[in-house]
Amino acid sequence: MRMRDARPGRPRHIPRTSAAPPRDQVLHAAAELFVTRGFAGTSTREIAERVGIRQASLYYWFAGKGEILAELLQRSVRPTVDKVAKIEAMVPPETYETALYLLALVDIRTLAEAPDNIGILAGMPDVTSCDVFGEFRDVRQELADAYGRLGLQIASPEVVAETDARELGEMLMHSIEVITKTRSGGRSVTTRMANNIAGSCLRTCGVTEDGIASARSIALALLAEFHDETDRALPQG
Amino acid sequence: MRMRDARPGRPRHIPRTSAAPPRDQVLHAAAELFVTRGFAGTSTREIAERVGIRQASLYYWFAGKGEILAELLQRSVRPTVDKVAKIEAMVPPETYETALYLLALVDIRTLAEAPDNIGILAGMPDVTSCDVFGEFRDVRQELADAYGRLGLQIASPEVVAETDARELGEMLMHSIEVITKTRSGGRSVTTRMANNIAGSCLRTCGVTEDGIASARSIALALLAEFHDETDRALPQG
Repeated sequence: MRMRDARPGRPRHIPRTSAAPPRDQVLHAAAELFVTRGFAGTSTREIAERVGIRQASLYYWFAGKGEILAELLQRSVRPTVDKVAKIEAMVPPETYETALYLLALVDIRTLAEAPDNIGILAGMPDVTSCDVFGEFRDVRQELADAYGRLGLQIASPEVVAETDARELGEMLMHSIEVITKTRSGGRSVTTRMANNIAGSCLRTCGVTEDGIASARSIALALLAEFHDETDRALPQG
Repeated sequence: MRMRDARPGRPRHIPRTSAAPPRDQVLHAAAELFVTRGFAGTSTREIAERVGIRQASLYYWFAGKGEILAELLQRSVRPTVDKVAKIEAMVPPETYETALYLLALVDIRTLAEAPDNIGILAGMPDVTSCDVFGEFRDVRQELADAYGRLGLQIASPEVVAETDARELGEMLMHSIEVITKTRSGGRSVTTRMANNIAGSCLRTCGVTEDGIASARSIALALLAEFHDETDRALPQG
């Protein structure tokens, strides 16, 4: 029998239940199970069963469920982190309000479009207490740092007196993550909601309504530059 | 042998590893396990083992781990919900800014002092997808409604145009829950942090810095009325 791939051990029989490549099917099934049953409550056997492959076949692609989790976590943050430098380069000089607004919109879109609402994983305690969370923590911190750095640049004197870059970064990043709750409640993330959350980030820093309106109009004009090939527009409403 | 309680089946041998009543020991052990390993990933056998009792003894107090979870969830929200009416009655008439600020402080204190950081449970997907979450959802919604109602009363025209009571309530309640992340990161919740988060709730609604300062001074003066017997002050800093 001729194998579809020369690499030894590659599973030969992948059920045609989905058009997605089998590795992606494993990621998708794992995400669904992690997000509904918890990471600790899911076994590789259950993931393999859901895809319709043998547990041994799953190990062809991943060393274990930790490695699957690591990849899902990265997918919920990397698309935003990879755009931070471009955001800071594209906005007019020293318009940190615009940069923060744009960062918020890009991050909201990442979380709104991430398959299986995987953005929720990073807040699950059985995930954060897991070994593989370590590598991911640095990437997540890079994003929190960007929020804190931009937030402090535009913070009113009152906000500066009450907080610091680290805490402000955590707060802003956390406020974006309300998206994962909207999704797990079965509601859609709309363009209007995205603008409200991004505006709320600027309000949290003490930016005035005029400042928010100005940041919004520039950020929305620049947003098209940050769409990945696969992005769809958020529904209006 | 004389039993310590006439009720049949009451476990007779409770190890003296803790001064807490055995039922509370079960709640505490369960909370620790749910919060670190997830609800789905924890068995009643493991909870019983951690307390040092037989699994059968655990069933004397609770019908199962769902019933334990239900009580822990209530403990993370009830102390705040039970004070909403008192908060609205105590603040000067139509000073909704003060009422929201005070609600935020009371809620932050509930989450900051809840044993084992159980506030985190309500956001865990293996918990929200669990049967017992149903009864709890109504209590949680009552709190979200209070946030939404107060928030909309003080919202600036821009915020009113961008959102509604339900969405604003979710956002404000979510913003308070950053406390659970602070705690799971091993950091203390300070008085300064509590004031920053409460202030940030008002900023999210579009309240001015003058309005926040005024709400804060009245709310802080009233806060002492809302301490339970067991409450300790948050650390300064």
